Amino acid sequence: MINGSDPILLTPGPLTTSPATRQAMLRDWGSWDAAFNQMTNTICVDLLAIVSGQKDFVCVPMQGSGTFSVEAALGSLVPHEAVVLVPNNGAYCTRILKILGRLGVAAIELNLRDDEPASVERIEDMFLREPRITHVAQVHLETSAGLLNPLEDIAALCARFDKRLIVDAMSSLGALPIDVSKGGIDAVISASGKCLEGVPGMGFVIVRRSLLEASEGISRSLALDLHDQYAYMLKTSQWRFTPPTHVVAALRAALDQFIAEGGQAARGARYRGNCATLIDAMAVLGFKPFLDASVQAPVIVTFHAPRDPAYDFKRFYEAVREAGYVLYPGKLTEVETFRVGCIGAIDANEMHNAVAAIGRALNALHVRLAA
Amino acid sequence: MINGSDPILLTPGPLTTSPATRQAMLRDWGSWDAAFNQMTNTICVDLLAIVSGQKDFVCVPMQGSGTFSVEAALGSLVPHEAVVLVPNNGAYCTRILKILGRLGVAAIELNLRDDEPASVERIEDMFLREPRITHVAQVHLETSAGLLNPLEDIAALCARFDKRLIVDAMSSLGALPIDVSKGGIDAVISASGKCLEGVPGMGFVIVRRSLLEASEGISRSLALDLHDQYAYMLKTSQWRFTPPTHVVAALRAALDQFIAEGGQAARGARYRGNCATLIDAMAVLGFKPFLDASVQAPVIVTFHAPRDPAYDFKRFYEAVREAGYVLYPGKLTEVETFRVGCIGAIDANEMHNAVAAIGRALNALHVRLAA
Repeated sequence: MINGSDPILLTPGPLTTSPATRQAMLRDWGSWDAAFNQMTNTICVDLLAIVSGQKDFVCVPMQGSGTFSVEAALGSLVPHEAVVLVPNNGAYCTRILKILGRLGVAAIELNLRDDEPASVERIEDMFLREPRITHVAQVHLETSAGLLNPLEDIAALCARFDKRLIVDAMSSLGALPIDVSKGGIDAVISASGKCLEGVPGMGFVIVRRSLLEASEGISRSLALDLHDQYAYMLKTSQWRFTPPTHVVAALRAALDQFIAEGGQAARGARYRGNCATLIDAMAVLGFKPFLDASVQAPVIVTFHAPRDPAYDFKRFYEAVREAGYVLYPGKLTEVETFRVGCIGAIDANEMHNAVAAIGRALNALHVRLAA
Repeated sequence: MINGSDPILLTPGPLTTSPATRQAMLRDWGSWDAAFNQMTNTICVDLLAIVSGQKDFVCVPMQGSGTFSVEAALGSLVPHEAVVLVPNNGAYCTRILKILGRLGVAAIELNLRDDEPASVERIEDMFLREPRITHVAQVHLETSAGLLNPLEDIAALCARFDKRLIVDAMSSLGALPIDVSKGGIDAVISASGKCLEGVPGMGFVIVRRSLLEASEGISRSLALDLHDQYAYMLKTSQWRFTPPTHVVAALRAALDQFIAEGGQAARGARYRGNCATLIDAMAVLGFKPFLDASVQAPVIVTFHAPRDPAYDFKRFYEAVREAGYVLYPGKLTEVETFRVGCIGAIDANEMHNAVAAIGRALNALHVRLAA
């Protein structure tokens, strides 16, 4: 996992990829070529297997960033007259609300704190108070703070109340268990450049086949029409519009490495190791995580910024970057924080080295942590 | 321009890129990183210069394929009550009509044959007959047949009639002259993986600043909201949503090579050489181009398929691919054709070799061309 002299990205995507993944981009592919389209097909097969969706689900890839796939799923699968419950504990939930607003779909927000997971009790309460709710749009791992929402329980609740559940699993798929075969989940959205450790440039939606097939004509966008993308691919085995060929090839290589590593269980274990190493080493420096350990996902950790007036995120960021590590700014509005990712082609050694670099940067900037 | 053992793509994008362009993807970039955002900025500066748009235009990059940028431009710049004239001589014009239909924007189609360029006379006639027309959406180079539309004349006409002109320059920008400083053009759309010889995965819209600034709130899509993308980038220097970092780095490298080659004039000259070599060599085999030379753009050439019943495109394609060249199927509905691209990091040698491979494939398949 040595990466030469390039900085290590401790960010929630783009992240540090392996040399093998990047080298897969050294070849050009024709989009009409059977070998390329076969590659797309094997990617979809492998993605379905990660969430145990082989039986009743299909995987539809989509050009663009993960948000493009979120909008494609919401715009293509949610009828215009639906009412969508959005448990909101961060910026990515807020983005879903914004997308629904643009699409003209009614949304009901369940307001939660940044550190408060969506709970079955709160959601059930909303179902009882607002029986017109037809759908739930749930962020699995809210990257704003790194917060884990209890997806399995929410899925069981949605199954019991017969609500359609659309899951934004951008920062979790591949690292945390997701099993659509247990019922309750209708669609799962993620992207190439997150825990699968591909490069950014495409997303995908894993959706119950019967739901997708019933969704023709819903999308008001052509580019983001998931049904159209699926129908065309089924008929021709090709992407509807020019695919990001090199990004696709990198994802194929990344999935090969994912499988060789031992799949989701092994990837999750490595990330948990990275996360524990990070939190322990940061604690020695005096940093405290924003989240309680019980709701901290092993993907990105939000730390309270030093209270010392000498601290300035931009200077801190630059100093750590000079040492070869790229941090991520905080995304909370009320508390000053910064974030450190635990994902990508990195292991506990990199986490140790990153924390050492953070310590040296604080020293160089004369920033002291409160005792 | 030797490409090792990978096949040469004679397709209108994805195309064959240079090793330097692909090697630029061997590094990971953080999307929050100043160096990366500076790279995006220099790309926009260089793209503006290609169309002489430095003074009054801005360049907004967009994730996804070129079609995503076309939809972003139409959905963000064309008010809902507009009436858009679409001169239609191929599949990409038809796609624009489809997008306008999804957006709920009124469109008037000017029906043209596949080999008939849009003419100032026909468009002026439409302006006079349909004064409610507010916009023209014009494909510069219709890739379906490889047909060149007279953009400069159409721009002058639009300026005279005060119609907004949005140009789909997907397959022309970088290879053919486009000069927005002469007036008449309000927006130009293209993508990374065409005549700029980057890899596919992002597009961009070069738009008159005053028009873009007046377009806030038009887009019903969040992901494809050009104004939002622009405003966020202006404020933060970052992409709104995860950028396709490796695709961006490849475009930066491709633009460096474009400038070193001598810019649009030199690139256009190389492609004209490729195109002339291709047509001449194919003529020796007995192949005739579908288009008249006067309207043939030097980007992709449509050839009539052999009439011999032994000819089958799939087998022909496979045989030529075996020899190392990837052709492109025809896209015309009434005539059986196939297409050969002249663009990418290739020169006249590759065109000679490709035609030799085509000749051998016909022999091997026992296909004879009509005398």
